[in-house]
Amino acid sequence: MIDEKGILFILSGPSGVGKGTVRKALFDQSTDLRYSISMTTRNPREGEVDGTDYFFKSREEFEKLISEGQLIEHAEYVGNYYGTPRQYVEKTLNEGKDVFLEIEVQGALKVRENFPQGVFIFLIPPSLEELKDRIVNRGTETEDKVKNRLHAAKEEIDMMDAYDYVVVNDEIDNAVTKVQSIVASEHCKRERVAHQYKKALEDE
Amino acid sequence: MIDEKGILFILSGPSGVGKGTVRKALFDQSTDLRYSISMTTRNPREGEVDGTDYFFKSREEFEKLISEGQLIEHAEYVGNYYGTPRQYVEKTLNEGKDVFLEIEVQGALKVRENFPQGVFIFLIPPSLEELKDRIVNRGTETEDKVKNRLHAAKEEIDMMDAYDYVVVNDEIDNAVTKVQSIVASEHCKRERVAHQYKKALEDE
Repeated sequence: MIDEKGILFILSGPSGVGKGTVRKALFDQSTDLRYSISMTTRNPREGEVDGTDYFFKSREEFEKLISEGQLIEHAEYVGNYYGTPRQYVEKTLNEGKDVFLEIEVQGALKVRENFPQGVFIFLIPPSLEELKDRIVNRGTETEDKVKNRLHAAKEEIDMMDAYDYVVVNDEIDNAVTKVQSIVASEHCKRERVAHQYKKALEDE
Repeated sequence: MIDEKGILFILSGPSGVGKGTVRKALFDQSTDLRYSISMTTRNPREGEVDGTDYFFKSREEFEKLISEGQLIEHAEYVGNYYGTPRQYVEKTLNEGKDVFLEIEVQGALKVRENFPQGVFIFLIPPSLEELKDRIVNRGTETEDKVKNRLHAAKEEIDMMDAYDYVVVNDEIDNAVTKVQSIVASEHCKRERVAHQYKKALEDE
């Protein structure tokens, strides 16, 4: 009983909420999901590896790829570009495999325009206060940048309505389990699978 | 972050598909779901306990409860009544707890009329052939009754379109895991929870 096409899952949410941490913990476990690595012009943080966490590009390189139409979506966020390479996503979905994106909110909204059948998951912090603590404690930002990020986060929370699911990142393990449940349940959605089951039974 | 009202989950599917087995395996594990015990006029099968598996009633008792409006739904199926007592379901949902029904297809369709916001899960056999084997091997039915059940099952499969999810009962553990995933993911549905998260963040 195979889905003809893979399902596109998009994990997004406010800056600082822990999208990357949840995504890494998810892929540390056994999963059939294929991760689509994003492209960015921001500087690597400590421990981040080019080609694993992101494809790190210069602004010039990034703008060339935009002009060639090689990105599904791209957005500028706090002064840096973020984008999703098109070819990997479309090829993998067509092979019947699920693709997982972890992207910023602006980018997710653009993916929704191109892939309305995607499953959009919004990761949210237990409270804005906790979000603030996490950003401050990251220690890589100036106070002005922190304020900018917090302002952006409040705006992003209003964007929740464009998503299918909301997962609170209270504990990483809880959040990962919820994302896994969403993936499993989406494969049971009647509108995705009914015609396959009906056909299998008619073939008896 | 508490849901104001519980969610009503309905597990249904063709006769003989193993609804009762999946439900029992689900409730053998840790779960926050509350099981609503159905009422029936059919004879108990070996090992079934009154008040645990079903409330077993005479036709006279059952028809009295119908006339008093004490059943959310009732249906006659292969010569027996099945029904869902109203009070337990409504009281438990209002307390913010999820309720789980395991009922026949006819009954599920009637519940959908009264609880369109419920989550309807259709359990399906890997093939109709396997369904037939299971019914024959149950050994409690005459050949005519088996034919009746198979005919009913084929009709019920066409009713899949009234459900939100389709779970194939290939292995009990797989089916239970999928039902648990559906329960978890439904609690993450944006339309159920968005207003709660927004309020929590505004209260900061």
